[in-house]
Amino acid sequence: MSQLLLKSVWLENERRDIRIADGVFKTIAPAGTLTADVPNVYELDCRHMAIVPAFYNTHTHAAMTFIRGLADDVPLKVWLEKHIWPREAKLSADDVYVASKYAILEMIRSGTVFFADMYWHRTQTIRAAEEMGVRASIGVTFADVLKPDTSENVQFLAENVSKYQNRIRLAVAPHAIYTNTARSLKMCAECSEKYRIPLHVHLAETRGEEKGSVDSTEGRSPVEYLDSLGLLSNRTVAAHVVYVSEKDLDILTERGVTVAHNPCSNMKLASGTFNAKPFVDRGIRLSLGTDGASSNNNLDMREEMKFASLLAKMTSGDSTLLSAKETLKIATQNGAEAFGFHAGKIEEGWLADALLLNLKAPCFAVGDVISNWVYAANSSVIDTVICDGNILMQHRVIPFADDIEKEFRERFNESRWRL
Amino acid sequence: MSQLLLKSVWLENERRDIRIADGVFKTIAPAGTLTADVPNVYELDCRHMAIVPAFYNTHTHAAMTFIRGLADDVPLKVWLEKHIWPREAKLSADDVYVASKYAILEMIRSGTVFFADMYWHRTQTIRAAEEMGVRASIGVTFADVLKPDTSENVQFLAENVSKYQNRIRLAVAPHAIYTNTARSLKMCAECSEKYRIPLHVHLAETRGEEKGSVDSTEGRSPVEYLDSLGLLSNRTVAAHVVYVSEKDLDILTERGVTVAHNPCSNMKLASGTFNAKPFVDRGIRLSLGTDGASSNNNLDMREEMKFASLLAKMTSGDSTLLSAKETLKIATQNGAEAFGFHAGKIEEGWLADALLLNLKAPCFAVGDVISNWVYAANSSVIDTVICDGNILMQHRVIPFADDIEKEFRERFNESRWRL
Repeated sequence: MSQLLLKSVWLENERRDIRIADGVFKTIAPAGTLTADVPNVYELDCRHMAIVPAFYNTHTHAAMTFIRGLADDVPLKVWLEKHIWPREAKLSADDVYVASKYAILEMIRSGTVFFADMYWHRTQTIRAAEEMGVRASIGVTFADVLKPDTSENVQFLAENVSKYQNRIRLAVAPHAIYTNTARSLKMCAECSEKYRIPLHVHLAETRGEEKGSVDSTEGRSPVEYLDSLGLLSNRTVAAHVVYVSEKDLDILTERGVTVAHNPCSNMKLASGTFNAKPFVDRGIRLSLGTDGASSNNNLDMREEMKFASLLAKMTSGDSTLLSAKETLKIATQNGAEAFGFHAGKIEEGWLADALLLNLKAPCFAVGDVISNWVYAANSSVIDTVICDGNILMQHRVIPFADDIEKEFRERFNESRWRL
Repeated sequence: MSQLLLKSVWLENERRDIRIADGVFKTIAPAGTLTADVPNVYELDCRHMAIVPAFYNTHTHAAMTFIRGLADDVPLKVWLEKHIWPREAKLSADDVYVASKYAILEMIRSGTVFFADMYWHRTQTIRAAEEMGVRASIGVTFADVLKPDTSENVQFLAENVSKYQNRIRLAVAPHAIYTNTARSLKMCAECSEKYRIPLHVHLAETRGEEKGSVDSTEGRSPVEYLDSLGLLSNRTVAAHVVYVSEKDLDILTERGVTVAHNPCSNMKLASGTFNAKPFVDRGIRLSLGTDGASSNNNLDMREEMKFASLLAKMTSGDSTLLSAKETLKIATQNGAEAFGFHAGKIEEGWLADALLLNLKAPCFAVGDVISNWVYAANSSVIDTVICDGNILMQHRVIPFADDIEKEFRERFNESRWRL
């Protein structure tokens, strides 16, 4: 791994030189003070760049890029039963590999270096993430109502947890309370505890899930039910979490659960209205996710930040809530910490995950860089993406992008996806 | 004006040849059937392009680009009184010219060919729009509570309405009920009636405006008050319209008012929650606006479409509401019609305003083009912008863009804007 030297980059209202080595920010110093101290230093002239943390997308289903734009503007039940599931039934392991690589290409272009995935054919998603140079938390998906045999999952975890401890890591991913028996959910809690790995779950996403929980668990809400089975801890990342009572919020606070907020998906599927205020007031850690490309319909965390911030302001009536700076933290540092990465801040000793933004872009002409990044820009202002000290994209060029796109188009433009 | 011949462009699931002449779509025919029939035909190879209508931004304050990113995450009252008004007080006519040109540059890049403006120093905005080749409705702003002498406005309209009948047109723009006396508002209605020009007004934007109206007009809502003064007709374009009763909705329906919805601005300033459903149910014409770059914070109608559609679905609980196709119509044809332009559709005889989208962009790999445009793309997929049969941007290049950006940066990076 070579060293990177970022010369004269804009960081929090000052110009700095930044040395990146061994995958971390080694030295941050006033501009003009750092020089190459070893061979193989790659020096970047950053006079027209600002450095910001790269995105951590804490809830997605990467391979769903294959179904984007094929099932919009329909009710949630129709979306799932008539469009998503029949197409997913046709999906092979190889398809997941190709669609995931394509998703990661989109993630890199829009500044994301980490994704928490929950899907089938996990080894193919792992392979895609490894090859593309990003970080990922790959969920081992439990859904014993649909796939009764969970022993393969348990065995996979036993054999592989220790193998994936760096860029790629494993998580236990019970799909939801309505696709798992209590037995399966308990098993997930045990695995997360045993291996000290994150537990990633859909939670309280829809009115139907809430009602089903109350009806089948003697009046327990989804949060109460999961808590009663031991699934809520500071290793838990719960996605959506739209339907919560005051009591539910207290439980989430006490257990130290991270809530992965998915504003676009919740809004587009009309599954409910997320109000950030009670979470923020209680100090519950919020992170951000795009969900899959079929319910969003992109993997663009910059757009997701704007939705999150504006939705929070609207639902609370408080225009100061989720400021640009706080929203950026939610989309970066909070997500990193939830999944155990010391990342999301441009500070010495932190993992070298970062974006270089092109300050020549018109939206940066006046005003605060972070405000403009969250509210005014789009992802095309990202010039360079750095993950683990390596450059994944420079001047918007990603190696092998054309080949990956060609492979994806050839595979998914086939008529078999037209239901 | 030369002819344009678009060869083999993707239009509603078919490849077509399109001849543009005299500023309209002259002939639309199967691909491969049209050839140049006069000299000076500019032929575009569109095999990798889709054609969609260009955006009509029906509520903005173009020159506010000078204050973008300088006043975010503060309460509405603080935003206006501590940030916007003090800075606007320093603004010269020349500043408005430079900031408006810069705004129009951003509009073209993000696919907008028309904007309905409401601001001061109108002749400078007119000059900017004329030079940049776009269409505009320039509001002659009435606000006699702030600027008591309205005679200059009346005289300006008398002298200029007939002069501006093509790309640039005038509108009567009473700022709001709280910045105008009844006398001034009535005068606006008379001018709109006399010259048959649009009346463009902020209406029912905030809770404060609603309360003020009820308190000062013997219980009338803002909509009822304006109606009682004769301001509501099918020439009226009312921006925001967040606070409305059933009775208000009936009035708007009966009068044929167009409602310019501004989702990002309403959400960001936490001014209220717009629910599209009762408007759609009654057949009230909705159009779309970005508002100014300080309360959004961009002029990007593609992003605004996604906000409008997702917000409508969430507030109504109906994921079928404001489909991609319907939302695109709101952002294009509805706005054009509200301001008297026969535009917003790619059909023979309609004004030749259009975008060519680059179908090689990753978001178009699978699925419906319009769905992907509204929900998945960003504005960087726009290759070419056509307005009135002229090319304003091709391959993302706009003539003189560098000069306009340089001029803007030099003027507004001065310390006088730092309050």
